[in-house]
Formats: sequence, structure tokens, C-alpha cells
Amino acid sequence: MKDNIITLDHGSGGKLSDQLIRSVFLKYFNNPILNQLHDGAVLPPTDKKIALSTDSYTISPLFFSGGNIGHLAIHGTVNDVAMCGGRPKYLSTSFIIEEGVSIEILEQITCSMAEAAKKAGVNVVTGDTKVVNKGDVDGIFINTTGIGYIDLDVNINANQAREGDIMIVNGPIGNHGISILASRENLQLDQVISSDTAPLSDLVYQMLSVTKEIHVLRDPTRGGLATALNEIAQSSKVEIEIEEEKIPIQEMVKDTCEILGYDPLYLANEGKLIAFVPERHAEKILKKMKNCQYGEQSKIIGRVVSEDRSEVYLRTDIGGKRVIGMLSGQQLPRIC
Amino acid sequence: MKDNIITLDHGSGGKLSDQLIRSVFLKYFNNPILNQLHDGAVLPPTDKKIALSTDSYTISPLFFSGGNIGHLAIHGTVNDVAMCGGRPKYLSTSFIIEEGVSIEILEQITCSMAEAAKKAGVNVVTGDTKVVNKGDVDGIFINTTGIGYIDLDVNINANQAREGDIMIVNGPIGNHGISILASRENLQLDQVISSDTAPLSDLVYQMLSVTKEIHVLRDPTRGGLATALNEIAQSSKVEIEIEEEKIPIQEMVKDTCEILGYDPLYLANEGKLIAFVPERHAEKILKKMKNCQYGEQSKIIGRVVSEDRSEVYLRTDIGGKRVIGMLSGQQLPRIC
Repeated sequence: MKDNIITLDHGSGGKLSDQLIRSVFLKYFNNPILNQLHDGAVLPPTDKKIALSTDSYTISPLFFSGGNIGHLAIHGTVNDVAMCGGRPKYLSTSFIIEEGVSIEILEQITCSMAEAAKKAGVNVVTGDTKVVNKGDVDGIFINTTGIGYIDLDVNINANQAREGDIMIVNGPIGNHGISILASRENLQLDQVISSDTAPLSDLVYQMLSVTKEIHVLRDPTRGGLATALNEIAQSSKVEIEIEEEKIPIQEMVKDTCEILGYDPLYLANEGKLIAFVPERHAEKILKKMKNCQYGEQSKIIGRVVSEDRSEVYLRTDIGGKRVIGMLSGQQLPRIC
Repeated sequence: MKDNIITLDHGSGGKLSDQLIRSVFLKYFNNPILNQLHDGAVLPPTDKKIALSTDSYTISPLFFSGGNIGHLAIHGTVNDVAMCGGRPKYLSTSFIIEEGVSIEILEQITCSMAEAAKKAGVNVVTGDTKVVNKGDVDGIFINTTGIGYIDLDVNINANQAREGDIMIVNGPIGNHGISILASRENLQLDQVISSDTAPLSDLVYQMLSVTKEIHVLRDPTRGGLATALNEIAQSSKVEIEIEEEKIPIQEMVKDTCEILGYDPLYLANEGKLIAFVPERHAEKILKKMKNCQYGEQSKIIGRVVSEDRSEVYLRTDIGGKRVIGMLSGQQLPRIC
């Protein structure tokens, strides 16, 4: 049934490309800007600052417990825009598809993207499709690039952490990494561990409704919490202390990490953020976060102790102090 | 020499990723916004309309006569923004790299991108890098997404062609397609045919300085001139006539097409545009184009004859009339 699979002709820019765009992409992403099928989208002017962020998603396997590459492609970019303090508005999307992929799979992923986009309040307004020879990619790669609007008085940046800042994380870490590992290696766990993939834009919007004075936001994806904190410590030139006993990790994730020798601090997350906020606003922000869909399990996990040096350390359960570096090498490739 | 090749660790989000970003990408793309290494770029507000366009480049081979994938990745997206009437300002870029690719090759491509971006007046302000297993991609894929500013009184769209509009092309067609074919198949041609890859943003800017009343702009890439005209005929619901004897094609390209059985009307271009303009402005715009770097060989090649139906036909040298459809199937895969 040649009709049900993607062929090189679907990427030719000719008749079959046009058919694929209309029967799959327009069907799900349907909106007035995209429907024009212009070379690009034309968007209205804005008196706000513009956040621009891009990511290519190459995750293997395409489907995993808790979602698929389509969810990631929307959430990941929406979250990066949100980490700039931006309210995501528009996305571009670009597919690189291996010939032989079934159109049903492509539709399923596109449908997930459309649902995720709707939930996150963004529209896919322009796109591109390439088809490459069998063997040249592993199924489907997706790039999304996002545009969001930032209020003029918001100034969130990895270099804005200050002595005394309190660090909040919006829930347990490590689930995405373990979920991908389990799906890929067919691990038989007692309980299914699902990816935490989720859009964080509304959570950030709610946090900013408490105060615009949020210093840093970051989503600890590849490289995990430890790497994200190190990047912030370097950009802001600050010393960060996190408290081991306060870091939320599900028992099941902790156990699996122990058996397999992973450190949850370095595992990828796709629905988590860390916020650095001035101490005087911390409790109010935390309270607001706990009332949000993706923030119920928010916790304060540490603080900026000085502006003397760039370092991240862990205060351990038994009172010790361990320096936490960036991820060196990799725990698990292609987790996003 | 493991140090000289890309490994999976370079895509981990950890230390080696950081090193790669600093030693290659920041070195060439160096600008204040990118250098912040935030999750996204923060851009100033604008009182103009915003053009957003995306493309993934999967061309094989990576290097060809007249350029490499890096030139294409900049020119292609800059041109798509320009075809919306936008002045390109900012680009995001996302690399998917096969492990084992030499860092030298990556640097060479990045350097070409930086040069092309400088020439086109755009800055690469945010990016992403993924590394996939050997065999999972063919070398390097690059996505670029571009943002440009459009004056409020510019309204260029594929659905704006009107009866009486004159069509101008900015030079000979088919060179890119033949150049890629020659590089890929090691064709021994009498003369080297180079790709026409070029940034068209300044040309468009100059055209708009004559009048804002340009109806349609399109760059005939995949699918060639014939497919682009068909898309416009459909969007605008117009009948388009092109005159065979007026279509500029280099002799060498014509001859190679004849030998190999290609139709130049369907060959990809990477530095060409077609403009639909009201007859009263046509001569002035043509004159202005001929004074531009990528417009010296501009020619009027046809016109919109009616708003009765969506059709494109060719008036042949001997006075016949041949309907020209969209590309069906493909002449040549992965030409961009």
C-alpha cells in the first residue's frame, strides 16, 4: 500500500508535498495564518519584547510512556520561550521524515502536536517538510521555533541570580530520563514511570502575576538539574547551595537510579523549571505555584549563598557538602 | 584523534556541548544576544509586522559548486522572509550532527553561515545542537528560522496576483539543480555550473523602494519555476502566461537538461525570485532590479492574463500553448 507511506516524492515540493500538507498538517494545525501557505507567516506588530527559541527533537523511541516526539516538540519550545519570561504565541515547525514512515504515525504525532499546542495557547503558523532516504534518519525529526511576548518590565536571564535568592523547583525530577530509558530498553519496572512532558507557560504567567521580579528561570532538560544550575552559577557568577533532602524525587525513580547507577540530578526533565527569586517574594510565589496545574508539588530546594565564585554544591542528608559539576559525557543520548 | 570529531557527548547538554558551543558557534556567530547563552533570544519590540519562516536543510552532498549547506541554510531562510516583503533581522539555527563528523567540517560550514549572515544583514541569535548515532543522519542537517520586519503598508502574498500583473524573474533558472546533480553524480561537464545560492533581501528592499505595491514574491526552490507559478495561480485564482523565449536559462544548463532529460522549469533555484507587479510599475522595478547585485539579468517573462481560472501555460517559441502543471513526483531529491 504505497499510498499509506511517506515517499521521497512527498518532499519534492510538488503535487504530493502539497497533498501531504493539506491532508495532514493543515488538517490538524488549521489556522488563518498557516492556511495561506505562504513562504512564511506574517504576524502583527507588538509593543512587547520578543522571545525567540529553537529546538530540534530527535528522540528515540518516537513514542514513550507519557507522550511522543510531538508532545516534546511543542512543550520543549514553549517552555524555552517561557523561561525567557515570554508568553508563547506562535510556532514554526519543520519535519525531516525518513521515507517509508507510515502516514498514520505522522498523523498521530501531528495530532499530538496540535493538541499540545492548543493547550499551551500557541498556533503553528508556518512550516517545512523534508523527506530523506531510508536509513538517513531514524524515523522522524522535528524542529520547532517559538515566538513569545515578554512584558517590558520583565528581565529574566541566567545572569540575574543574586546572593540571597531562593530556588524553587516545580516538582519531582528525573522522570523523563527514566521513562525514555525504560521505553528504549524495555525495562520491566514494577510500576510505569511516565515522562513529565508538559507546557509550563501558564505556570510562568501565574508566577509573573505575583511579581515581575523573578531573576532566573530555566528548564533542566538535557544534563538535568545539576547542569542547569552550573550554567546559572557560571552566568551569574554565584555560589549555589541545594539541599539533598529537599529535592523532590519519586521513590520509583530513586530506586531505578540506584539499580542502574544513574544520578537523578543529571537526568533530563521535560516539564520542570527552576526559579531563582528574591527571598521576600519566595513564599508568595511558591503558594501561587502550588495552585497551578504543573506546580502542585513545587518546593524550595536551595539558595544563592554568595557572589564570591561560580560553584554549585549539595548539602547532603548527613550534613556533608559535595560539589556538583556539569554533566561530563552523557548518561543517555537522544532523550529529546 | 577523538578530539577532532563530533561524539555523542557533544550533544549531551553537558561539558562537551558547552565547549562545542563556545569554540565553534560563538566564535563565528558572535553577537551580544547569542553570547548570553539563554534558553532563547530576547529581541526588542517592533512597530512593524513580523515575518516568520523556517526551513530544514538536508542537502546531499554538503559541499557543491557554488557553496555548501551553510550558505543554503542562511540564504534559503533569509529569502523566504524577504518573499513576505520582510527585511530579515534575526535567525535561529539548529544543527543535527552525525557522530563522527569532523569538527573541521562543522567549522567550515559554520564559518560559511556566519559570512552569509553578515552579507545578508542578519544575526544568529539563538540555537540548538543535537548529535545522533552514526548512520542516523547523513552528515549534518541544519534548520534555520528567520524573523524579519515588514512595513505596515506592504501586503505581499501568493493570493495577491491580479489580471494584468507583469512577472519578472531576476536571472537564469535551473543552475542550483544542475550544480547539485553534477556534484552528486560526479558529472564531467565541459564547464562548471555553479549553484545560484544568494541572499535576495537587499534586492527585495530595493524593489520596495520603487513602490510598496508589489503583489507577489516567491523564490522558486524545490519544484522550480513551474511549481511556484502553479501555487500562485491556485492561491490567487488566476491564469498565468509565460513566454518560453523570454525565460532566461544559461546555454550550459539548457544543454545538460537536454542530455539528461530534465526540464529546467522544474529545477530548483536558490537565488531566484519571481515578482508579480502591476503593469504601471513594471519598467521602473525592472530597471531598479538590474542595478542590484543579484538582479543584473532580470527579465520580464510573462503576465497574468485573466482571473477566470487557476492555470499556468507556456507560450512556446513556435507560437504554441502548453499547460504547465506542478511537479509530480521528483526530479532530484534532497536539493536543499
